[in-house]
Amino acid sequence: MELLVSKGSEDSLTAEFDAPYLIYLGDVKESSQAKTALGLRDWARDRCLAQYRRLPETLSIGLPDMTFEAAVAAGCRSLVIGLAPIGGQIPKAWQGDIVAALKAGLDIVSGMHTRLKDIAEIANLAKMKCRRLIDVRQPQRAYPVGTGRKRTGRRLLTVGTDCALGKKYTALSITRELQQRGLKATFRATGQTGIMLAGTGIPIDSIVSDFIAGASEVLSPDNEIDHWDVIEGQGSLFHPAYAAVSLGLLHGSQPDAIVMCHDPSRRHIQGYPDFPLPDLKDAIALTLSMGRLTNPTIRCIGVSLNTSHIDAEKRSQLISETADYLGLPCVDPIAMGVTPIVDSMGLP
Amino acid sequence: MELLVSKGSEDSLTAEFDAPYLIYLGDVKESSQAKTALGLRDWARDRCLAQYRRLPETLSIGLPDMTFEAAVAAGCRSLVIGLAPIGGQIPKAWQGDIVAALKAGLDIVSGMHTRLKDIAEIANLAKMKCRRLIDVRQPQRAYPVGTGRKRTGRRLLTVGTDCALGKKYTALSITRELQQRGLKATFRATGQTGIMLAGTGIPIDSIVSDFIAGASEVLSPDNEIDHWDVIEGQGSLFHPAYAAVSLGLLHGSQPDAIVMCHDPSRRHIQGYPDFPLPDLKDAIALTLSMGRLTNPTIRCIGVSLNTSHIDAEKRSQLISETADYLGLPCVDPIAMGVTPIVDSMGLP
Repeated sequence: MELLVSKGSEDSLTAEFDAPYLIYLGDVKESSQAKTALGLRDWARDRCLAQYRRLPETLSIGLPDMTFEAAVAAGCRSLVIGLAPIGGQIPKAWQGDIVAALKAGLDIVSGMHTRLKDIAEIANLAKMKCRRLIDVRQPQRAYPVGTGRKRTGRRLLTVGTDCALGKKYTALSITRELQQRGLKATFRATGQTGIMLAGTGIPIDSIVSDFIAGASEVLSPDNEIDHWDVIEGQGSLFHPAYAAVSLGLLHGSQPDAIVMCHDPSRRHIQGYPDFPLPDLKDAIALTLSMGRLTNPTIRCIGVSLNTSHIDAEKRSQLISETADYLGLPCVDPIAMGVTPIVDSMGLP
Repeated sequence: MELLVSKGSEDSLTAEFDAPYLIYLGDVKESSQAKTALGLRDWARDRCLAQYRRLPETLSIGLPDMTFEAAVAAGCRSLVIGLAPIGGQIPKAWQGDIVAALKAGLDIVSGMHTRLKDIAEIANLAKMKCRRLIDVRQPQRAYPVGTGRKRTGRRLLTVGTDCALGKKYTALSITRELQQRGLKATFRATGQTGIMLAGTGIPIDSIVSDFIAGASEVLSPDNEIDHWDVIEGQGSLFHPAYAAVSLGLLHGSQPDAIVMCHDPSRRHIQGYPDFPLPDLKDAIALTLSMGRLTNPTIRCIGVSLNTSHIDAEKRSQLISETADYLGLPCVDPIAMGVTPIVDSMGLP
């Protein structure tokens, strides 16, 4: 996905850090908490040399295991913290590893809310060792209040029934397919992993809430009328903690098209057992209803199912049932690509 | 409203600044941009000694005009910037006045997004003169991610069809009437003026968006089952810039009751002529629909109309027509109090 990488501008957050990477997996056991690690492996495999797991039972993403010293000897330049725990804090246990990695000679790249430079031991050691601390999730500039002004060009936003179920993968897949067809398209990153992949973007969940719609407007500026901005969605309107993030991004993005992302194996919002997932029809209807405020012609052009937890033989049945139920193209972007959705994005 | 003033705790933002105040009105001509000044005049009149207007055509809020020097001679301790321009920035023109006020011997209290201490000339002068700079809108602590856990006690949230049309006045009026009836009630401030009045609160539009629902949960913690938290609403679900703020506050507040606030003289969102105000029935239905995520028993118990721009003879007709149309108690809290709404808040 080298087409995605931008050199940034004064308007962008530029994530400048050196490859190859050692991917840090800490003590995480669930793949849902390793979104960044998995995203880098799947979309920037050539930049990922190895993985570091602090416990034998830590999740593996299939890269070679290396110690910090071995990774440096093999040419690694940066330790990328490939994890996204709820709340984005850096646990104490990981801080010791970060110190050891700095001592071994690695720069540290983090996408969490806690800033590396706010942890005194890490900040002091990095200074002493002339190592760089890169906090991808820190907004790099101030953003204006939203204007609601309609912008030129076309926009697609991936939305979802929950967090961490495929909004970024779907947006990346659609961008790649549009580009492969020779159409003008730009992936717009809104989260730590997307920003690491694209080299630019806005960490939308880190924006002060008065400015979230405004920042979302800045993310996809006026463009050519046949250009698609494919915007990485965040959170869910049905999430008791993050719905505000989703709504600000929806309003500022002014999408012409949404793709609803869903994991059919989930019964409730991840980590919130009292909050059942919505029916897909209701989820689409509510998102369109809210989105009409800033784009009255918003429509849903497809559904993206994450069927990674579903048996292969049940997958195609589920996908065709969902397409029939909703009357919309339905895909699993990993298993089968996004062709039926991109087919409907042709310009008139 | 001395009952509202709290001494704060480690969980609160405590706005400690000295009365009496000189209220700064700058060059503002519209009362909608002087919410803080008007709020202090109406709800903390005993703490407001005078006003400062930088131009003859500046709005007056009916206090005596004084220069900085005259105000200090009359006993003023703090210059309170009583203005809320879109975006909350401090214009260059005002910065010169702030410098002059510091030189005259006043502390400065601001509720804007721009921090006084981030403006070098002001920060340096305050340090040299040993004057205090108080930024009410800066969160004083970190907040957790929302949990969605139902809390004990009862909650009312004022919501609105737009900004700056009576959500704070309505919440203050309801709190006062509940307290006058001997019921347990606490006003929960979420904006600069409310925080200045209450002495505590959370500047909800200044919270990073990932944490806005969590901060809103912290604002009204578990309480006695017959206690009402009366929460000051922010923004509007129909506002192209601020709907995310309103949604995060709605989800975290988990209100049992909402009161919809509206200015019947407005045709569109203030400052956004392309965004018409919603019909009141639609506004109530959408707010209840979104609010049910965290409190399935949410209901609307009344409507608060700001009729300050309506002829007195038309007011009572409009209020009774609105009540009939919606089948709900309807009041103007300034003109007639909130008795019909509070009557419906009795505990079973």
